[in-house]
Amino acid sequence: MPEGKTARRPMRKDTAQTRDRLLDAAGRLLTERGTAFTLPDLARASGVATATVYRHFGDVHDVHREFYYRLMGELVEDLEKISVRAHGRQRFEAVCALWSDLATSWGRAATHIRSAEGFLERVRRGDPPTSALYGALAPVLGELVTEHEIPEQNVEYAVLLWVTVFDERVIVDLSTTLGWSPRRIGRTLAQTVLTALTQPG
Amino acid sequence: MPEGKTARRPMRKDTAQTRDRLLDAAGRLLTERGTAFTLPDLARASGVATATVYRHFGDVHDVHREFYYRLMGELVEDLEKISVRAHGRQRFEAVCALWSDLATSWGRAATHIRSAEGFLERVRRGDPPTSALYGALAPVLGELVTEHEIPEQNVEYAVLLWVTVFDERVIVDLSTTLGWSPRRIGRTLAQTVLTALTQPG
Repeated sequence: MPEGKTARRPMRKDTAQTRDRLLDAAGRLLTERGTAFTLPDLARASGVATATVYRHFGDVHDVHREFYYRLMGELVEDLEKISVRAHGRQRFEAVCALWSDLATSWGRAATHIRSAEGFLERVRRGDPPTSALYGALAPVLGELVTEHEIPEQNVEYAVLLWVTVFDERVIVDLSTTLGWSPRRIGRTLAQTVLTALTQPG
Repeated sequence: MPEGKTARRPMRKDTAQTRDRLLDAAGRLLTERGTAFTLPDLARASGVATATVYRHFGDVHDVHREFYYRLMGELVEDLEKISVRAHGRQRFEAVCALWSDLATSWGRAATHIRSAEGFLERVRRGDPPTSALYGALAPVLGELVTEHEIPEQNVEYAVLLWVTVFDERVIVDLSTTLGWSPRRIGRTLAQTVLTALTQPG
């Protein structure tokens, strides 16, 4: 039914735009207040009618999850763009730099909705955003091995170490407390992970 | 007033025992259900009257905080005992081993009440358990420098790296997902941090 599809398309685009607007506002609320906000607060902060907010999200936990899913989707997409144009150590350093740079904007919001479950636990049970992130990082770290930058090792441990050291809370902490620039954070953490991985694991 | 003091002592001891019993039960609830429990749930789980629970804690966030404070107090005390009998790299390795060993029991509970605030941010504002932990770890890492195990470096960054890599979520993850023993976890993470710190920072 192409007519039906055409008729519904603008509606869908509106819905997607409203959803993005709501998730943008959710990011600001998470940054400013942590998880202490309600769906009516989100309506006020985004300028969207409360009834509309309830059509998008069942409860505030849906908002946290959807914010996190969208964020991870965007990050993974950005990381994969780097993979097209860089290789080996250069690719690793570009990934570290990009992540640190982006994390200074989304990091504070994300610290409030961090999972209590381990990274590898989420990968193993097939959690979509965590699996996508693992899928983007594993080849970057694997290539350091094939290009002899680091010795043969457990790639799961290497990826876990990367996400642990590049934790958003660490990046926000270094930025806020020590006043480091995103560039310095990215370089230092990259060097830390790379040095740590010079031991065979 | 020694009499008054004496008269009150048994009462205080009872109160402390009840509090410990409540915090032990809180640890079990956090491990099993995360933060999804109420003060009446805590009363049931501990076998303590609900009214008594309310005399100890204003709300469930008090329970989380007090559980965390007691835990950190005990850990710091254990770490400081090591400092009396070991030095340099041996002390560092003993601290890593003890922490990994203990974290396999309290780790899962603690993942649910992790602060969104950075470790150094909490140290800088004088948060008591974080400052105590920093106070216990900084000399251990500082001694690696004075004994020439690692080069001169930013001790704040070194301590941040240690607590980041020895994060309870990482320890639980390695234990659950890769099936590593506490001993293997302690050794691997110790080696990771030590290798990472061989770069001047």
